[in-house]
Amino acid sequence: MRASQFFISTLKEAPAEAELVSHKLMIRAGLIRKLGSGLYTWMPLGLKILRKVETVIREEMNGAGAVELLMPAIQPAELWQETGRWDIFGPLMLRIKDRHERDFCFGPTHEEVVTDIARKEIRSYRQLPVNFYQIQMKFRDEIRPRFGVMRAREFLMKDAYSFDTNKENLKKSYQGMYDAYTRIFTRLGLKFRAVAADTGAIGGSASHEFQVLAESGEDAIAYCPESEYAANVELAEAISPATKRSEGKESMQEVATPRMKTCDQVAEFLGLSLQCTVKSVVRVSGTTMYMFLIRGDHTLNEVKVTKLAAEEFRPATEEEIEAKINCKPGYIGPVGLHDSGIVIVADRTVAEMNDFVCGANKAEYHLKGVNWERNLPLPHQIADIRNVVEGDSSPDGNGQLKIARGIEVGHVFALGTKYSEAMNANYIDESGQTQPMEMGCYGIGVSRVVAAAIEQNFDDRGITFPRAVAPFDIAIIPVGYGKSEAVREVADRLHNELTAAGLDVLLDDRDDRIGVMLAEQELIGIPHRVVIGERALKNGQVEYQARTEKEATLIPLENASATLKSKICL
Amino acid sequence: MRASQFFISTLKEAPAEAELVSHKLMIRAGLIRKLGSGLYTWMPLGLKILRKVETVIREEMNGAGAVELLMPAIQPAELWQETGRWDIFGPLMLRIKDRHERDFCFGPTHEEVVTDIARKEIRSYRQLPVNFYQIQMKFRDEIRPRFGVMRAREFLMKDAYSFDTNKENLKKSYQGMYDAYTRIFTRLGLKFRAVAADTGAIGGSASHEFQVLAESGEDAIAYCPESEYAANVELAEAISPATKRSEGKESMQEVATPRMKTCDQVAEFLGLSLQCTVKSVVRVSGTTMYMFLIRGDHTLNEVKVTKLAAEEFRPATEEEIEAKINCKPGYIGPVGLHDSGIVIVADRTVAEMNDFVCGANKAEYHLKGVNWERNLPLPHQIADIRNVVEGDSSPDGNGQLKIARGIEVGHVFALGTKYSEAMNANYIDESGQTQPMEMGCYGIGVSRVVAAAIEQNFDDRGITFPRAVAPFDIAIIPVGYGKSEAVREVADRLHNELTAAGLDVLLDDRDDRIGVMLAEQELIGIPHRVVIGERALKNGQVEYQARTEKEATLIPLENASATLKSKICL
Repeated sequence: MRASQFFISTLKEAPAEAELVSHKLMIRAGLIRKLGSGLYTWMPLGLKILRKVETVIREEMNGAGAVELLMPAIQPAELWQETGRWDIFGPLMLRIKDRHERDFCFGPTHEEVVTDIARKEIRSYRQLPVNFYQIQMKFRDEIRPRFGVMRAREFLMKDAYSFDTNKENLKKSYQGMYDAYTRIFTRLGLKFRAVAADTGAIGGSASHEFQVLAESGEDAIAYCPESEYAANVELAEAISPATKRSEGKESMQEVATPRMKTCDQVAEFLGLSLQCTVKSVVRVSGTTMYMFLIRGDHTLNEVKVTKLAAEEFRPATEEEIEAKINCKPGYIGPVGLHDSGIVIVADRTVAEMNDFVCGANKAEYHLKGVNWERNLPLPHQIADIRNVVEGDSSPDGNGQLKIARGIEVGHVFALGTKYSEAMNANYIDESGQTQPMEMGCYGIGVSRVVAAAIEQNFDDRGITFPRAVAPFDIAIIPVGYGKSEAVREVADRLHNELTAAGLDVLLDDRDDRIGVMLAEQELIGIPHRVVIGERALKNGQVEYQARTEKEATLIPLENASATLKSKICL
Repeated sequence: MRASQFFISTLKEAPAEAELVSHKLMIRAGLIRKLGSGLYTWMPLGLKILRKVETVIREEMNGAGAVELLMPAIQPAELWQETGRWDIFGPLMLRIKDRHERDFCFGPTHEEVVTDIARKEIRSYRQLPVNFYQIQMKFRDEIRPRFGVMRAREFLMKDAYSFDTNKENLKKSYQGMYDAYTRIFTRLGLKFRAVAADTGAIGGSASHEFQVLAESGEDAIAYCPESEYAANVELAEAISPATKRSEGKESMQEVATPRMKTCDQVAEFLGLSLQCTVKSVVRVSGTTMYMFLIRGDHTLNEVKVTKLAAEEFRPATEEEIEAKINCKPGYIGPVGLHDSGIVIVADRTVAEMNDFVCGANKAEYHLKGVNWERNLPLPHQIADIRNVVEGDSSPDGNGQLKIARGIEVGHVFALGTKYSEAMNANYIDESGQTQPMEMGCYGIGVSRVVAAAIEQNFDDRGITFPRAVAPFDIAIIPVGYGKSEAVREVADRLHNELTAAGLDVLLDDRDDRIGVMLAEQELIGIPHRVVIGERALKNGQVEYQARTEKEATLIPLENASATLKSKICL
């Protein structure tokens, strides 16, 4: 491709509203242009990248046995009413009335449409399994679109939907997609983790998020660098400490802690480590009061706590606490409350502590040197109720957890029969019985992948794309293309030879100043470049530099195509 | 591709609402499925065809120097207000309010968006010409969507927009697109014509429609089978007859024609050919009355007539005619009216007639044997004011016109500066002056191409796709795939060999009854098939049949792949 026949339009400055690196660089490199809030045009250079991502996804989806189709973007309300989601989905769904005042939406997702297709087309177990996918623009009416294509309103998505005869086969389909996603993000050259996730609004029984690791990510992830383990911080298990409870050395004593209400204050006041303190958090579920005990430096995990009672928890009021414990918050603790009717739940770590500090249930006082089974009975329940922290043992036993931030680029869900039951998507099994199909759904944010790749690959000069997502494999930059016949001849020849070898080549024939051309190429992030100048040519050489290298090297003009090809295809 | 890993779902019957052959066959072959009025899912088999069409279009657009980008489907109202089209476009445009009650539309076309891009990105004549295109789902809220994807609401379109420095360069861009379209539809194997068209609502100076010839088409086209000439019937030029006016043989006489008001009635009553009669049509423009003379068997062309006066024409009332000519309609004619203030305009054909019949300007009477320059002076004006008919000479002098029906699949427009002036899309020319860019726009209805291809290629068994738009190149149909190891081995081997040779192969490994498999393959329209059965195999043969052939032929198993490949790539 000759630059003069393409369209490249870069900027020196990013707009003030761009906060993320990827947003800034995508605008500056001319990959996207804003049309309106959360609406972007993919310019020729950006679209080329988007299509490369699309191609990798399509190849791996086809390889995994999924079949591509294309459903309408505009969907009738009736289908969404069948599953009840027309009322639940909220303002993220763009609702539309056609000229006959009938209700439609611009599909934010396609479970209803694909389930409608399945119930009409699939009759027998012989037609199963099947996995339909599409690559299509979706619209979600974000309240505050931001970060460029990272949280846009119109965005390209790959969405797949599997249909199986039973849960076991659904598991196989799910695993097939999990493996395909792993191959996709590996081929795209991304550092990522598959993270066990909460199933959230879409519902279902199993779910993994594929998170690209980057500082700018919105989600906190706990992962183990020594293994494949990764989970959202809210879901990561905090296992029992390896060091079990030893006998206490101190005897319990009441200490005055005037105006010291938090563990931090108490630890500092007593000259002790925060890790010696225990925090007591009081919540109410139905008519039962619970006291949750976590170590002073830990935080309560609301998702884990929720699972301990049938009814939702709410914080106890100051009045409730005073009525039950006869002490105001800030000085409460578990000692003496075992038979008070309060359910005492200790975190696994707290259960293994000794000589700890906790509230004395007496204003302005704490207890120190507290030990289980000596100063108080074991708690009613021991459970994992805290958020993991860096340094915790990995639940898979393979090392210590790290906490990183991630950008969600993919999501796999085992949906089960939620949609098939609501919409009567049934098949006839081998024994002639009617059964609901077991469904899974699998999404990749295609446009977001491009932004995520940039968040992982940039330096102070611009983007440093891995080859799989680069707009071109190599840039040929002639110095004086219009003036020097020798330069032009070599540039044209290399362009033709490398293109014929199947590489994606950009020849910058615009004859701009060399500094301008080099800076632009570095901004755009083409992974390799070769500069052709008269001086080096006289020595039978051209100048090669990888985008991630600091210095250029001279390579012989003889066999230059073969040399460059081997560098690109490394 | 193995059928068991694909998804084919055919029907015996088409829905009652399907009128067009293409609509019926697309539903029956499982290429599309209806989601709602004018909304269709492209099933895997249909999408495969759509992608083949897309690929041909993309290759030829790139080859013609156009650059692909992707604009948002959802467009802010503000841009449409700049050109005034927000108010003019009418209910065909789907209007949307987002959660903040701001106005948007689902883009029915993208002139405003692309002009906005051009005015922001293009500064200098050095950046011109440029031609941006995209392949994207459009939405038009048709009042009565019908004919399947032929007139759907959501449909795939290729839209391109060229920007040039001046009219001469616009002409080159226009011609480049005209040529590219010609290559595209030729490669797709379609019988089509590029038809000079009226510029209509989009406006501009030149316009051609690309029409696929088919009986079901909505538009009437005049074309010359001996040349490239083609035009919409309303625009086709009716040239002067080759035979010029000869001297009249009769002398003029008044004949009583009681109650005979139309040319048909008069010709029959007098025992003359309709082609001897002249019809007089009276219209008013401003304060001037016109009398248009056309031959009795011709029809007045309203578009052509419009161009003869600055103000619009309206039919004259009976009162106006009686006041001016002193005769009621039905019996009026040009004789004696030359100096009456009525402008007499004769069609080119009428101007060459002699011994003709016309109204006598006296109730219940006509004149026969009327001759120009003998019974009346030549008309004030001689012009092309009629619709062409089959058998007329082609305006390019290459033979006789035929009239056919066509399906519009593409359209090229020279827009000029309509949008660039309204939106201030200017560039700086070589002398430093600010100039509006000259624009062209070029559309192809991608989904409609698929339907049009079927309208041209079907028989009583189903679709007979040309290779370029067929979902697969060849179907391999084994008889007893599950039972016979010999059959399976040959089927698998042919599948692998032909696939490796770069062909798109469907192996029907579903082990259905042979009749079912053959009928399905014929319905779907795969252009070639090979049946593998044990009996023929024993003689070292397999059975080949092209979709358009009546009979199968046996070909040797040895070198079968090479034989089949040569048949497919003929």
